[in-house]
Parts: sequence; structure tokens; C-alpha cells
Amino acid sequence: MANDANPPAAAEGTGRGRGRRPADEVRADVLRTVGDLLLAEGIGDLTFERVARAAGVSKTTLYKWWPSRGALCLDGYFHAVENTLAFPDTGDIRVDLLAQLRAFAQVMTRTPGGRVLAELIGASQTDQDLATAYRRLYSSQRRRLAGERLLRAQELGQIRPGTDVQILVDQLWGAVYHRLLIPDEPVTDEFVVGLVGNLLDGVGPG
Amino acid sequence: MANDANPPAAAEGTGRGRGRRPADEVRADVLRTVGDLLLAEGIGDLTFERVARAAGVSKTTLYKWWPSRGALCLDGYFHAVENTLAFPDTGDIRVDLLAQLRAFAQVMTRTPGGRVLAELIGASQTDQDLATAYRRLYSSQRRRLAGERLLRAQELGQIRPGTDVQILVDQLWGAVYHRLLIPDEPVTDEFVVGLVGNLLDGVGPG
Repeated sequence: MANDANPPAAAEGTGRGRGRRPADEVRADVLRTVGDLLLAEGIGDLTFERVARAAGVSKTTLYKWWPSRGALCLDGYFHAVENTLAFPDTGDIRVDLLAQLRAFAQVMTRTPGGRVLAELIGASQTDQDLATAYRRLYSSQRRRLAGERLLRAQELGQIRPGTDVQILVDQLWGAVYHRLLIPDEPVTDEFVVGLVGNLLDGVGPG
Repeated sequence: MANDANPPAAAEGTGRGRGRRPADEVRADVLRTVGDLLLAEGIGDLTFERVARAAGVSKTTLYKWWPSRGALCLDGYFHAVENTLAFPDTGDIRVDLLAQLRAFAQVMTRTPGGRVLAELIGASQTDQDLATAYRRLYSSQRRRLAGERLLRAQELGQIRPGTDVQILVDQLWGAVYHRLLIPDEPVTDEFVVGLVGNLLDGVGPG
């Protein structure tokens, strides 16, 4: 799959047309390779060496674009889950949040994706460069996409005016991360349904 | 302060009546010492050696009760914040949640406590023993205490029947942890007020 973008003539040996493909294409190829590896195996054996070999690029090229293994992983992971974790817009925020959060919970609990993010978040607590990369390449992008969908719902009157939608990001996806990072309680479908219902309907006496 | 529990006669030199004080008293003394160190300085320089010296106990005694530095820190931290983070019960859940979450946010952002927990949560992503200690000595205890307060509110009809109050724990305190661990957005008073309001009042069109 990582080779789909290569013209067949260039796909021989390890050279694979190195230096001939446009940079954007090489970059996309690397990100796809990294994403595939992460979702199949997790972060354990992912090295610059292995990615360079699998994507047919030099390690120098990789280091030029991604200064650390963490940055490479985050960029690859973001692109790997971009479609699966897209924010649908059927016009009904309750339906769309449930669908997206279910897909999110699925990736986090049924693929190595959850472990990948948990380990990167974990390491970023004592690695400032990784923390910066995490926010820049992953979390702030995901936050922006979630915020855009929530704001459209707010414009349609499906979320109360004056609500700071960024707080909802913490109360929905942040709540899932909480159970992943500190697993006192499991991430179940009841949990996901509860997250959405508690916020849209409120838990006060009403 | 760590010496308050010692009888004056035993408080000389480094011996300080070692082996004479009842185990409960020694244990409380150690936890107080650890808690004081953590809230004053964070986790960086906290070693078994230093705690043993400061609390006047042997390292062997410490290792007997706490198998790792992480376990010692978690137990000490739990006791250090137990009073500050107690769940008040004035009979009004909105008032009490706000008060407790403000105290929690204060500890997490204005003392080394936030860093201590973030680093322990971070390290626990790749250290299974620490993860187990974290849940046993800290998070499951805090979850239980929060759940007890929320259940009393539910019994009084201040939280809608059928609500799984453990999900609220993730949407309140878990949301704060999310901003601490992945600091795309800050933990402000507006954030804390929003957390409580969003859940009790709901953010749907109503």
C-alpha cells in the first residue's frame, strides 16, 4: 500500500527512483508508511531506519522533514486517522457526535492507535520538544476540526449560544483520553453515549 | 512540620526514636514528609534516601511499605491533598462542585502538584507497576470520593436519575487532566465554571 504512489518503473531495488519523485509525493509516501506501521504494530519497532527502507527514502531526507521519531509518528498518525476520524456533518450534531466518538473509541481501543497516543502523551510530559510536536502536529489540529463542527452546530442553534465549544472538546474527547491514560474505568459504548447525552441534555433536574 | 508527631524526647539526632514509634505513626510521618516535599519542590529530587533522612526512618522500612518511588510519591501526594481536595457537602451540588473544582485547579496549576501527577501519569504509560500503583493509591480513591458526593446529589434529585455519575468524573476532573496533559488550552476559572454549567444545564437548545 505504501508503494501505490510510485510509478512501476521506479519501484525496483531500494533506489525506487529516489530523488526523482516530487517532494510532496515522497512526503505523502512516508506518512502513509508510518501510519500503516503504527496502526498495525504500534510505536515499538518504528525507527527512522525502518521507515527509510520501507518508503525508499534516505534517513537524511526523513530527518530534514521530521526532527525526531515522535514528530514523524505524530505526523504519520494524524494522516492515518484523518479519514476515519473525520467529523461528519449530517446536520444533526447529536447523531454526528455519536458517530465520530464511536469511531474514535474504536480506533483508541481496537487498534494500536490508543497505545501510540498514550505513549506519546506520556513521554511528552518530560520531553518538551515532543510536547510541542504533539500539540502542533496532532492535538491542536484535532481540536480545530472538532471546534469547526461544533461551531456549525452552534450556528444552527443545536448548541446553546454562548457555550465555549472548546470546553466541550475536553468534556467529550478529553474524557475518553482520561479513561485511556488512567484506566480505572473502561471505554464502552455506554460511556460514549453518556458523554454526548450528559452534555446535550444536561444532568441537572431540568 | 514533619516532626509534629514525634515525642520531643525522641527528636534528637538522626535516631529520633527509630524503631520505638508505633508503625502507624512512622507511616503517617513519612507520608507527611513526602507530601510536603512534593508540594514544595515536585518530584525531581525526591529519593528514598532523602525521605528516609528527613523522616528519620531507614530505607529498609520505606521499601517494606512502598516498593517504588512512584508508589511512595502517590501515597504521599494523596494524603497531602486529601483535605484541600475534600468534597464539600453544603447540600447544593452546583456550589460544591464549583468549590471543589476550583481547589483542584488551584493545586494543579499553582503548586508543583500538577507536574507531579502529570509526570506520574506520563511514566505510567510505559511502566505497568506504576500504572497499577497510580490507580490503587490515587486515582481510584479520588474517583470513589467524587462518586460518593455525586451520588448523594443524585439521591436528592439534583442529578437526573439514571445518570452514570462515573461518567461525570471524566467530564469534570478528566477534562481538567486533559488540559494539563495536552496543554493546547489553559485551565482558567471560566473553564471550570463552564465544565459544571455545561453538564448541569446542558448545552443543547433546551
